[in-house]
Amino acid sequence: MDKKFRIEKDSLGEFPVPADAWYGVQTARAVANFPISGRRPDRDFIVAHARIKRAAAAANEAAGWLESRLAESIRAAADAIIAGRHHDEFVVDRFQAGAGTSHNMNTNEVIANLANVALGGSRGVYKPVHPNDHVNMGQSTNDTIPTAIRLACLAKLPKLTQALERMAQEYGRIAAAEANTVKSGRTHLQDAVPTTVGREFAAHAYILRRCAQNLEAVRPRLAEIGLGGSAAGTGLNTAPGYVERAAAELAQLTGEPIRPSADLAAQMQSMGDLQHLSNGIRLAALELTRISNDMRLLASGPRTGLGEIELPPVQPGSSIMPGKVNPVMFEMLNQVCYQVLGQDAAVAYMTQAGQLELNVMMPALGSALFDAMDWLTNAVAAATEKNLKGLKVNRERCREYTHLSVGLATLLNTSIGYAAAAEVAKESEKSGRPVREIVAEKGLMTTAAFDRLVEQAAVDGNIERR
Amino acid sequence: MDKKFRIEKDSLGEFPVPADAWYGVQTARAVANFPISGRRPDRDFIVAHARIKRAAAAANEAAGWLESRLAESIRAAADAIIAGRHHDEFVVDRFQAGAGTSHNMNTNEVIANLANVALGGSRGVYKPVHPNDHVNMGQSTNDTIPTAIRLACLAKLPKLTQALERMAQEYGRIAAAEANTVKSGRTHLQDAVPTTVGREFAAHAYILRRCAQNLEAVRPRLAEIGLGGSAAGTGLNTAPGYVERAAAELAQLTGEPIRPSADLAAQMQSMGDLQHLSNGIRLAALELTRISNDMRLLASGPRTGLGEIELPPVQPGSSIMPGKVNPVMFEMLNQVCYQVLGQDAAVAYMTQAGQLELNVMMPALGSALFDAMDWLTNAVAAATEKNLKGLKVNRERCREYTHLSVGLATLLNTSIGYAAAAEVAKESEKSGRPVREIVAEKGLMTTAAFDRLVEQAAVDGNIERR
Amino acid sequence: MDKKFRIEKDSLGEFPVPADAWYGVQTARAVANFPISGRRPDRDFIVAHARIKRAAAAANEAAGWLESRLAESIRAAADAIIAGRHHDEFVVDRFQAGAGTSHNMNTNEVIANLANVALGGSRGVYKPVHPNDHVNMGQSTNDTIPTAIRLACLAKLPKLTQALERMAQEYGRIAAAEANTVKSGRTHLQDAVPTTVGREFAAHAYILRRCAQNLEAVRPRLAEIGLGGSAAGTGLNTAPGYVERAAAELAQLTGEPIRPSADLAAQMQSMGDLQHLSNGIRLAALELTRISNDMRLLASGPRTGLGEIELPPVQPGSSIMPGKVNPVMFEMLNQVCYQVLGQDAAVAYMTQAGQLELNVMMPALGSALFDAMDWLTNAVAAATEKNLKGLKVNRERCREYTHLSVGLATLLNTSIGYAAAAEVAKESEKSGRPVREIVAEKGLMTTAAFDRLVEQAAVDGNIERR
Amino acid sequence: MDKKFRIEKDSLGEFPVPADAWYGVQTARAVANFPISGRRPDRDFIVAHARIKRAAAAANEAAGWLESRLAESIRAAADAIIAGRHHDEFVVDRFQAGAGTSHNMNTNEVIANLANVALGGSRGVYKPVHPNDHVNMGQSTNDTIPTAIRLACLAKLPKLTQALERMAQEYGRIAAAEANTVKSGRTHLQDAVPTTVGREFAAHAYILRRCAQNLEAVRPRLAEIGLGGSAAGTGLNTAPGYVERAAAELAQLTGEPIRPSADLAAQMQSMGDLQHLSNGIRLAALELTRISNDMRLLASGPRTGLGEIELPPVQPGSSIMPGKVNPVMFEMLNQVCYQVLGQDAAVAYMTQAGQLELNVMMPALGSALFDAMDWLTNAVAAATEKNLKGLKVNRERCREYTHLSVGLATLLNTSIGYAAAAEVAKESEKSGRPVREIVAEKGLMTTAAFDRLVEQAAVDGNIERR
Repeated sequence: MDKKFRIEKDSLGEFPVPADAWYGVQTARAVANFPISGRRPDRDFIVAHARIKRAAAAANEAAGWLESRLAESIRAAADAIIAGRHHDEFVVDRFQAGAGTSHNMNTNEVIANLANVALGGSRGVYKPVHPNDHVNMGQSTNDTIPTAIRLACLAKLPKLTQALERMAQEYGRIAAAEANTVKSGRTHLQDAVPTTVGREFAAHAYILRRCAQNLEAVRPRLAEIGLGGSAAGTGLNTAPGYVERAAAELAQLTGEPIRPSADLAAQMQSMGDLQHLSNGIRLAALELTRISNDMRLLASGPRTGLGEIELPPVQPGSSIMPGKVNPVMFEMLNQVCYQVLGQDAAVAYMTQAGQLELNVMMPALGSALFDAMDWLTNAVAAATEKNLKGLKVNRERCREYTHLSVGLATLLNTSIGYAAAAEVAKESEKSGRPVREIVAEKGLMTTAAFDRLVEQAAVDGNIERR
Repeated sequence: MDKKFRIEKDSLGEFPVPADAWYGVQTARAVANFPISGRRPDRDFIVAHARIKRAAAAANEAAGWLESRLAESIRAAADAIIAGRHHDEFVVDRFQAGAGTSHNMNTNEVIANLANVALGGSRGVYKPVHPNDHVNMGQSTNDTIPTAIRLACLAKLPKLTQALERMAQEYGRIAAAEANTVKSGRTHLQDAVPTTVGREFAAHAYILRRCAQNLEAVRPRLAEIGLGGSAAGTGLNTAPGYVERAAAELAQLTGEPIRPSADLAAQMQSMGDLQHLSNGIRLAALELTRISNDMRLLASGPRTGLGEIELPPVQPGSSIMPGKVNPVMFEMLNQVCYQVLGQDAAVAYMTQAGQLELNVMMPALGSALFDAMDWLTNAVAAATEKNLKGLKVNRERCREYTHLSVGLATLLNTSIGYAAAAEVAKESEKSGRPVREIVAEKGLMTTAAFDRLVEQAAVDGNIERR
Repeated sequence: MDKKFRIEKDSLGEFPVPADAWYGVQTARAVANFPISGRRPDRDFIVAHARIKRAAAAANEAAGWLESRLAESIRAAADAIIAGRHHDEFVVDRFQAGAGTSHNMNTNEVIANLANVALGGSRGVYKPVHPNDHVNMGQSTNDTIPTAIRLACLAKLPKLTQALERMAQEYGRIAAAEANTVKSGRTHLQDAVPTTVGREFAAHAYILRRCAQNLEAVRPRLAEIGLGGSAAGTGLNTAPGYVERAAAELAQLTGEPIRPSADLAAQMQSMGDLQHLSNGIRLAALELTRISNDMRLLASGPRTGLGEIELPPVQPGSSIMPGKVNPVMFEMLNQVCYQVLGQDAAVAYMTQAGQLELNVMMPALGSALFDAMDWLTNAVAAATEKNLKGLKVNRERCREYTHLSVGLATLLNTSIGYAAAAEVAKESEKSGRPVREIVAEKGLMTTAAFDRLVEQAAVDGNIERR
Repeated sequence: MDKKFRIEKDSLGEFPVPADAWYGVQTARAVANFPISGRRPDRDFIVAHARIKRAAAAANEAAGWLESRLAESIRAAADAIIAGRHHDEFVVDRFQAGAGTSHNMNTNEVIANLANVALGGSRGVYKPVHPNDHVNMGQSTNDTIPTAIRLACLAKLPKLTQALERMAQEYGRIAAAEANTVKSGRTHLQDAVPTTVGREFAAHAYILRRCAQNLEAVRPRLAEIGLGGSAAGTGLNTAPGYVERAAAELAQLTGEPIRPSADLAAQMQSMGDLQHLSNGIRLAALELTRISNDMRLLASGPRTGLGEIELPPVQPGSSIMPGKVNPVMFEMLNQVCYQVLGQDAAVAYMTQAGQLELNVMMPALGSALFDAMDWLTNAVAAATEKNLKGLKVNRERCREYTHLSVGLATLLNTSIGYAAAAEVAKESEKSGRPVREIVAEKGLMTTAAFDRLVEQAAVDGNIERR
């Protein structure tokens, strides 16, 4: 390989760095140390961390700790990263040094080199802008990394809640259209009382909105940052007013209600707010698992299953069974949900692993969360777009089942009592004859009257006692 | 065995019931069907379910569906259970029929028999009060069981949040007393900058209050009940006004802001609100795991560990090592937290297992939650009482460490820069000499001045740039 | 309260002990310290720990370290416990002192008091038999507790594997009876190629036996005990030959291939073998979850579900829906499996929580495992007994589905190719006409010939290319 | 975009495919359907699946079902993929159609196009080689995908076990070198009896080998493939002798003991063998978590921690604290282990999610396993290479702690009894004087004799009774 290198030095000695890299020696060491997953940092996280550098430079300049020329050059470099440039300079594996020192130094070095070159210097020299003394001024990995994770999550959060809300809308739309589509309810997967497709789909909409609200409620928690705690939450080496100014800058940069936490030290020991977010994601994944399972069950068939709904085909279903159409979008959503539950399990293990002043598991914790949010957002959106839009309800099938259900005997409770109604149900079950016939035979009601009662009960539930 | 039995009959036929039992045939069948754990129902759950029967009877009476004489007798029987009587009549295993039909029938039968005997009838006859037609009027296992789980959780919730708050207070008390106790911070378990015991303990107080607040925030969600959904969430066979009246009764009986959910069907399919609660419990368990680990680490020693704190001895520590004192209360708390994490994992599996109109996993889901809440409450309270009260801080040891820490070099950053400070740190580390000596030797500061700086930095964090 | 107490003393001072208790001061302290779950120790664990005391006494006597008179009295007391007596003297909560010092001392004290009284002494005096010096001779909580957990698991293991084997037999029995019962396969819950009930049930039998074999394979691992490691795995204060003799005694007492581990220290730091067992239990629970879900799905209906099998009714299914029969045994099994998955999650958290020479989380880890094993054993046995015996296959329904399935088009692949077969499938799906009709119409085969082909394919799978 | 497309057609109609793509219409649809993670398939999995296509072609040719000219062209195309070419043609997201139909068709299409072009045809025409009729002959997604997952895991397994073995060797090497390095044991993190660094590190070696053995024991299970089950495990449309021939081909291609499962249907419903593998990975991750935690604890300091070992510095530890060196390799390993535990949690959720004839969650299940294996392998290797090689034991510090430990009182048990020894311990603890001094003062032993006894006890454990 004839790739060119420059030699840089840090407290451990000299180390080669690719000549054209904007990053420096500590990043290069980290690349060598951590050949684990080959996965580079999340882009929202890169941006969030660059925003922190920008905000810190502004706050330090305002406090008179950082020369304006240097502050300006740092801000310009950070802005380039925020705008999406140089992301391929962020090269440290997602599994890396505890607490994310490697990523912090990667950012510090890239910004320092960009700034110095802009100021007429050259890469790897770190003058006039030094990665630690200036780019990292008043900061520590201890406070910038957990803050960056919070900001990245805040950037992703609306996409996730909107995807959930969009799916809820679609369920709501179908629920409205099928408000009077009578079907047999099933409890314990057994014939139960009549209900409507509208009621079922409205419940899904209701629950998905709940999930979105729960997630939304975590937002203010995420916005309470520990930036300014610097090393070990002490605030050591931070300028007067820095904490408030840096937070205000970040609030402006992100449009989020960022504010300093009441306990800066707690925010680097405790990953509680991030776990709180993961809890909300998990809850959504659990509900989506259940709902996807239901969708696939209702779409089962076309001949040997329930067949109450039909999902639009998006690809041939089988390599061997011709003409087969599978509920692939919800199967995909199921799979994503399960992996998201795995991400959450990983997050939980890391949340409990903090020790004394710091939780060093943050890089992997953040990564697990970022993936969970992105994947779930994309999966929910794809399932909504490809399989809820265009979903058809098989009203005929629904009605057939309604009038076959043994559960219809329940409608007799208020007139003849549970015990007598049980006899009707039993007779229906054993003979295979529908409840309506037995009802008519017993002179309790005409079949037509009973059918009307059934449909009314499905829609209204509450039947006037006769 | 010469135990006496009476013979009762249900839709499956005859079955023997202990002659002196207040419960009836369906309960007896369930006892025979489910010889699993030998664990009987949670007492708060028994009471909650009885309250629902009481509220339903009142609502049905008000609607004119239930004769006052019967309603009164049902209420009286329910009141006896609410007051703690007859709890040994609740005999069905915690692992039982899906959705809890067995427990519902156990309650219905006990109340019916109590009521009938009070009205001059006899056990097992079910006249004039019938378990299904009267005690269960307008109700279904589908709606009473999830509502009862909510009520039982609401009953337990304040005990848990108070235990957390009490522990937070104790941490706060120590934090205040030790606000100026200087110690070495540790990040990555490595020497870091100076901090204070006060800052550490205050963070624990802050986080525990957070956990309590998160739990408290679930309360309104739990109060949204699905009672009145009856079978499959349809509200079938419920009296006009029943939903609102029953909820109002329960609000009065419990003192909680009980109200009907906006979607009654959703509340029997989705265990989301209970999972939301479990999430909050899990978060507390994860934070308590971390904090307990820290306590045990800081108390390690007395000679071969950190020894910064001393936990009051509550029992001899070892069967073989004389004089050993172990941090048993926090070890116990750790163990409880781990089991609570297991309970939450079980709850999550059950939350995703709902199908169509119902989640039949509710009995075990409720049980897992109840245990988690009780055990965590008791464990937190015991650890607070026995190991936080009486905790001693070894200030001498803390101070020693402070001045030995290589992390003190950080205090030189703002005066001599990161790179030069790193040289000082390296020299200290290699030579084994404290930072203060090297600082003095280099003429940067006298040892006394440096010591003062260190202590000030620990307390204030933010050091004025010199 | 006029309960009588005696005063005992330990290294922390005096403490009251109920006058009639066989346990002593350290147990009494532990009862006061740990009012957590109210759950007392597992009975197999009590017995296992007593066996260790018996074996140790024998080994110490043989080594000449323990006077025969004392050894005999210890053995006699241990034998009483092994025989099931005095179990109500084991009173320390399952959540207790780290590593189980409290339970170890509870046993030591009960045995010492029983022995001393038998030798003419009195309770609470501890002469001539001392709980630490004699009953615990050469032992430590560090080695007796993990060994006792292993022994208790070994005692429970055959019950669990037999329950699984018994269920497998029942599935095998049905599979044999239904080897030629043709039904429609379902993949993705969609119509697939024909198969047989026999093939489905045989697969369940196969998998359950796999689970039992996996569990059985853990047995030799569990039999490698760390007894003799005493404190911290060093073997300190153990007599020459003690390790081998104690293991041989235990082998004889239990009938298990007990032998000393090659690394005594590892066996108290690492809970790996117990996690290995928990892994096997988890795997069984995951497979049983899947199989139970399938059973409930196949039994769904009777009218609005698949209805291919009928589970024997064991109790009325609903408090409101008369005549409803639910698959309660498999619902119960599902719930137990989920809780067992929770137990495993708790065990995993505890397995990773060992520190240096010891894993102090053992008491709760053992308890979680014991419950998992007992509950799963009972649940599998109950489901087998009450719901597999007596299960009926609805052959008529199975056949109907077979000939309706759109998946039958797959049988045309080898004759007309996938693409042309897909056209047939599509036509069938759109028109609602069965595949056989279209096949006949296209002149590919008579309907009768096609029907024969279908049934043959279901049973044999492998169809000769025509 | 001026990218060129060709139009292909499948049973759903026409769809554009990039003109230069080797894959075809179904792959293109899947790319459009699943924009989820942006992560493409694992390379071992691509190769494994291509091997199956090769083996199937050979078996079909041998049975006379597949023309040799076509078989040869399929084998040649598969070989190219096996050799690592065309991997960028595998473009479907890891989260995709249930069961992996999309990946199966991707392979079928790439091979068909490569084969057809080699035979003089052109892309997208599928003559003479058809993706379904020839490349997929006798196969189904149902059997090729789970088989490919097994093969990919078998390819990864030796790398993981070797990494574990290599780490065990390194621990063993250090253990041998430090067999006589006396140190204080710590149980409950409290001073315990003396032990050696050798004993501690030997236990790690022992446990890691156990983990490797457990994993190795899964190998024969993984080698039992369901290939030949075709659709729904029935073996439909497979040639006589195909099952055995295809397995034999795979055995030769992989060097693994591949053989047909005794129950082909079970292998597509049950992911039990893959879960069994995941169990083994999880166990390794749990043990590695514990061991990494121990390493970081023993390396804590240099001044304010235990400081018994020193890990070689591989990069500067902090962006703010100069000279700080953190245990970054073990921190990274900890993080990887936690994510691996998350992968396992995801796998478990998917293992239980099979329904009837198929578990459609396989693609994500496989992906979760692949990542877990790769990441853990790389992390263990990196930690071994960078932090175990070069690890230094601070023997001086170890010895100091040994003689300070209050736990030394245990050595007096056999001479003066537990109760008297406890008094010595207590005096030492209160006064702060070492045990040796009190022992000498009491005339029990000279300090020199006691010191010798301590060191001997540490190494030998078993002390002759005096």
